[in-house]
Amino acid sequence: MKILDNLDNRYQALQEIVKKELSYAAHDLDHILRVYNLCMLLAEEERDVDLEVLIPAALLHDIARRDEDEDITGEIDHAVLGAEMAGRILHDLDYDPEIIVRIKDCIKAHRFRSGFTPDTIEAKILFDADKLDVLGAVGIARSFMLAGEHGEKMHNDIPLDEYLEENVGPNGRIKDASKHTANLEFELKLKKIPERLFTDKAKQIAAHRIQYMETFFKILVGEVNGQR
Amino acid sequence: MKILDNLDNRYQALQEIVKKELSYAAHDLDHILRVYNLCMLLAEEERDVDLEVLIPAALLHDIARRDEDEDITGEIDHAVLGAEMAGRILHDLDYDPEIIVRIKDCIKAHRFRSGFTPDTIEAKILFDADKLDVLGAVGIARSFMLAGEHGEKMHNDIPLDEYLEENVGPNGRIKDASKHTANLEFELKLKKIPERLFTDKAKQIAAHRIQYMETFFKILVGEVNGQR
Repeated sequence: MKILDNLDNRYQALQEIVKKELSYAAHDLDHILRVYNLCMLLAEEERDVDLEVLIPAALLHDIARRDEDEDITGEIDHAVLGAEMAGRILHDLDYDPEIIVRIKDCIKAHRFRSGFTPDTIEAKILFDADKLDVLGAVGIARSFMLAGEHGEKMHNDIPLDEYLEENVGPNGRIKDASKHTANLEFELKLKKIPERLFTDKAKQIAAHRIQYMETFFKILVGEVNGQR
Repeated sequence: MKILDNLDNRYQALQEIVKKELSYAAHDLDHILRVYNLCMLLAEEERDVDLEVLIPAALLHDIARRDEDEDITGEIDHAVLGAEMAGRILHDLDYDPEIIVRIKDCIKAHRFRSGFTPDTIEAKILFDADKLDVLGAVGIARSFMLAGEHGEKMHNDIPLDEYLEENVGPNGRIKDASKHTANLEFELKLKKIPERLFTDKAKQIAAHRIQYMETFFKILVGEVNGQR
């Protein structure tokens, strides 16, 4: 069974591996598919994108997600470990060693915090696509799914500046996690995503998706306060 | 501490009771506040609304929510039990017996399935306000919070008609709960709400909120498929 029906048969083995590894959490697999779709969208606007690198990188970028999630030490970085795991998987599938290095570089650099900067067009596209997936209608859905999972409130009616002053430490961490909401996540983190993106197309999509979220939260607050 | 700062002191005792009963689930308390706000909005458009009935009914309408949630027999109906509980609470607070009967009637009839029809303007307003609270941006947030809580997928890319044919039995029940999504909830249930409402203002708000949700889900599906 193929995850991505429109994908070349060559990627079927890879898809099976990703599916098996991520089937413990359906939302992670869905994220892979969305990121793959976004990568293809961004790739259309760029020159000399090597899909032989980008496609496996998109499919494998979160392959170590479960290891990070289940790691109680907090030391596993799924980008770093994922690159290593991807390397072994691709080696076993007889990928060209030079291609493997380039795929690993994409995976290693796909995350803000891992300390590697995307420096190839494929790595930049993967990074951007991964970030875009927390924005827009998908970003709204994802934020509230997480809020539901963590038992958060739908909304907190403390004005945001007051809220930030009281609840966010100098390091940007939220002191009182029970006060966390989707709106706060948006204001504190998601709104800053566009400035960290690399490709023009992604910046444009991000601006559009941020605008949509902004309007959504305004409507939400209005409804909470008894407007139509 | 008052839940509703703009409320008369007379309701402080009631608010404390509601707060205590529903504090086990923060989202239920938030729902009460939103329903109260909506009741006030709807009441503005109607004649001869008795706020002495409507306000306590709004505050107490879900007072038996926990009993229903924790009931393993599935026999407790929070509308029916809630009316009884409200009766005792209001009696202890020395409410007029005639007012208590009218408040109980509102609570008993606020739910689709309980088999009582709202026949006073206060009962109609409470019914409508309670239903409006699952629509609009609040409805989107709520649907995805539930999806997150129940480990559902964000979206299912099976076409809806195929989906319905395969997964919904003749009684309207979903056969395979693991395939349930917020979008399905919207298509199967939420879209039908406007036709069951009583007041014109609520019907108008519902149409507006349904339209907003419709657009949201279109955008979500577009994004899932890799559009901007």
